[in-house]
Amino acid sequence: MSILIKNATIVTMNANRDIIYGDLLIENDRISRIGKLNQYTADTVIDASNQLLLPGFVQSHVHLCQALFRGMADDLELLDWLKQRLWPLEANHDEESLYYSSLLGCAELLRGGTTSIIDMATVNHTESVFTAVKQAGIRYLGGKCLMDHGEDVPENMLDTTEQALSESLELYERWNNYDNGRIRYALCPRFAVSCSDTLLRETASLSRQYQIPVHTHASENRGEIELVEKERGMRNVIYLDSLGLCNNKLILAHCIHLNEDEMQILVDSQSNIVHCPGSNLKLGSGIAPIPGLLDRGARISLGADGAPCNNNLSIFMEMRLAALIHKPFHGPSSMPAETVVEIATLGGAKAMGLENEIGSLEEGKKADMVLISLDGWHTRPQNAAKVYSQLVYQAQASDVSATIVDGHLLMKDGHLLIINEEEVKSRAETSLPRVCQRSGISR
Amino acid sequence: MSILIKNATIVTMNANRDIIYGDLLIENDRISRIGKLNQYTADTVIDASNQLLLPGFVQSHVHLCQALFRGMADDLELLDWLKQRLWPLEANHDEESLYYSSLLGCAELLRGGTTSIIDMATVNHTESVFTAVKQAGIRYLGGKCLMDHGEDVPENMLDTTEQALSESLELYERWNNYDNGRIRYALCPRFAVSCSDTLLRETASLSRQYQIPVHTHASENRGEIELVEKERGMRNVIYLDSLGLCNNKLILAHCIHLNEDEMQILVDSQSNIVHCPGSNLKLGSGIAPIPGLLDRGARISLGADGAPCNNNLSIFMEMRLAALIHKPFHGPSSMPAETVVEIATLGGAKAMGLENEIGSLEEGKKADMVLISLDGWHTRPQNAAKVYSQLVYQAQASDVSATIVDGHLLMKDGHLLIINEEEVKSRAETSLPRVCQRSGISR
Repeated sequence: MSILIKNATIVTMNANRDIIYGDLLIENDRISRIGKLNQYTADTVIDASNQLLLPGFVQSHVHLCQALFRGMADDLELLDWLKQRLWPLEANHDEESLYYSSLLGCAELLRGGTTSIIDMATVNHTESVFTAVKQAGIRYLGGKCLMDHGEDVPENMLDTTEQALSESLELYERWNNYDNGRIRYALCPRFAVSCSDTLLRETASLSRQYQIPVHTHASENRGEIELVEKERGMRNVIYLDSLGLCNNKLILAHCIHLNEDEMQILVDSQSNIVHCPGSNLKLGSGIAPIPGLLDRGARISLGADGAPCNNNLSIFMEMRLAALIHKPFHGPSSMPAETVVEIATLGGAKAMGLENEIGSLEEGKKADMVLISLDGWHTRPQNAAKVYSQLVYQAQASDVSATIVDGHLLMKDGHLLIINEEEVKSRAETSLPRVCQRSGISR
Repeated sequence: MSILIKNATIVTMNANRDIIYGDLLIENDRISRIGKLNQYTADTVIDASNQLLLPGFVQSHVHLCQALFRGMADDLELLDWLKQRLWPLEANHDEESLYYSSLLGCAELLRGGTTSIIDMATVNHTESVFTAVKQAGIRYLGGKCLMDHGEDVPENMLDTTEQALSESLELYERWNNYDNGRIRYALCPRFAVSCSDTLLRETASLSRQYQIPVHTHASENRGEIELVEKERGMRNVIYLDSLGLCNNKLILAHCIHLNEDEMQILVDSQSNIVHCPGSNLKLGSGIAPIPGLLDRGARISLGADGAPCNNNLSIFMEMRLAALIHKPFHGPSSMPAETVVEIATLGGAKAMGLENEIGSLEEGKKADMVLISLDGWHTRPQNAAKVYSQLVYQAQASDVSATIVDGHLLMKDGHLLIINEEEVKSRAETSLPRVCQRSGISR
């Protein structure tokens, strides 16, 4: 199967940051050629005149399981948000509601140009999430949420340590490297507040033994870090590091409240920090020290987090926020647009452990990419701004005109091609009342 | 001429904040009926099932003259941004480039659901701006930019005091209350840095004499307030108040760096403060103390400012930012969604001096309104969130499906009905190189 994209402005994100006016040929799951390809043809030919062709965006922290709960948990801070709303809702998912929640999330992500995600599922029915991402075609790294500890947790979300880990290994065996490596498994302890010391130690041990990435949250909220310090006697990141978790396989969402030692640990260990500006603002969590972390050489990527704490899953909103919110404190030239696009592509690729496969448009790399139309009023004049500025400060999710993952055209002109749109819309709508009723949370 | 909108979720923004599932009838320029109107018909009938019907959004601080320069002035703070980029560009507008810049801005605004604006034109060719807004159909309050003072100002932007005021009065005579009152005139001194003491005093005097609103900037940037304090011996807002400018006819953009006395002056005088969060972040200006001002009872409205300092003119982006950026400092329940929608509708109506005419959907009021589709993936599930949350945290400019101003349907399904889209796009694109060449600024 081959796709030829013609007459595009190709924003390669290669080492030279070349921007090439020309064509790109996809054969099977790989980019085979970039340049002037007049002599080539393909099964599918797309004319991309006046469009930008970019590596697919990576969101390295999302919760597909929460997509169904968009708008049901406003105006709360993290721990209340979890205990009063999110945990009861997650706890009452059934296989079908979780499947359609995941497809709803994938549909929004693919429609808006996100081709790869690092996800945290919920505690139960994790198979439903993998079945949905198998169906959706998105590139996925994620796994079952691990919780064996903590107060006010719904009963069916508290696994034993043994259950949490054995189920993870079963899912790992079944799903890791599924579909040409498109789907991969990550160990997902929720956060130190929800995990016993033993669970976190065993997670670190399994990660080392099988080379499995670990995806978790840390230092998002002051109440959270106080609780960790009280229970474990150390600051959050220092504690995670003491368990052997801080390394380049760790994907750590938020990292807002860090002291100097913690910043240095994350930099030295090449841990992957996920900046989630939309979620951090909405929950009132704070503003992560991203410019300082970048200056120190930290690995930074971006994520929208869950639909109920954002309430969108748009990489464009996160890029815009990442570029804007630090400027009042670090000056208008901080977080320049090009850096933000790097974070959203190359940074995410590193967090996925796939920097040799995705994150830039280069011959031989995986064919994950998006086309972005510049035809809207909000992107005109078309040729005035630098492309990175167009992407970060002007473009919106609705400008994405095509999304390709692993050589498959998944979205074109706003329509998803392998997801049944009507089915997902209607079954998501009918699933929500069931979950609400069981959880006792009114809409 | 009549329009009947059927089966809408009507978010009235009336005093009770009623949300009505039903129909709305427009006759000529007014809302004539709201309710179940099965027995009525009209020249145009719109089925608005699964859509929100809202009062048209008001942006109370924009610069149509800058729409053409979108993306040409990134990474600079206010005074550098003005002196190095914006003033040279504005100074080199010709009648045609300014006309198409204004139409480009209006097209983006109307497409995204903004029905009313308070604008500041540039110093020259102001007639072109009024001709464009006459053509575009948007509700407009604005006028010629007044500048007679300051360093590094391009020669042709420095009027004499006399020129600035006499030209303003000519424009006022010609355009104020044009087209059924849709277009109104405001006196627009740029900011204290660009205006002599005499010009500001005369502006205050003309405003009193003819009851003309005054639209200006204040206290956006630390360098600016230091300069004002040095030249005029007072803090910015205290100085403006000493001239008699602070009253309910004043529209004051930004107001970031205020002390307690200045806040109290603005509250007591019922001056209209325009929060411009996107611009304030991008220029690194700071974060305006909006929650505190609201607590004190200040009149707050919203604006995207100019395209080169945002770089969008989307009320949805500004609403989202207004809701989000204060939460890390004031908690997650600060700036709730309903308050933000109030600011973007009723607040803007007050700033326009039109609270009895626009800002809410009530029988007898002007027919300025927008329809918002909830069909996108990012607004699903459709009935989970409160409507204000859907508007502020989920909806995007691309979700606006119809825009009506003064009883005229100006945009439907993404297409502008009375602006020639192709002409505006192509003539805007061809105008920019002329302005760039004259200004010596490369694209």
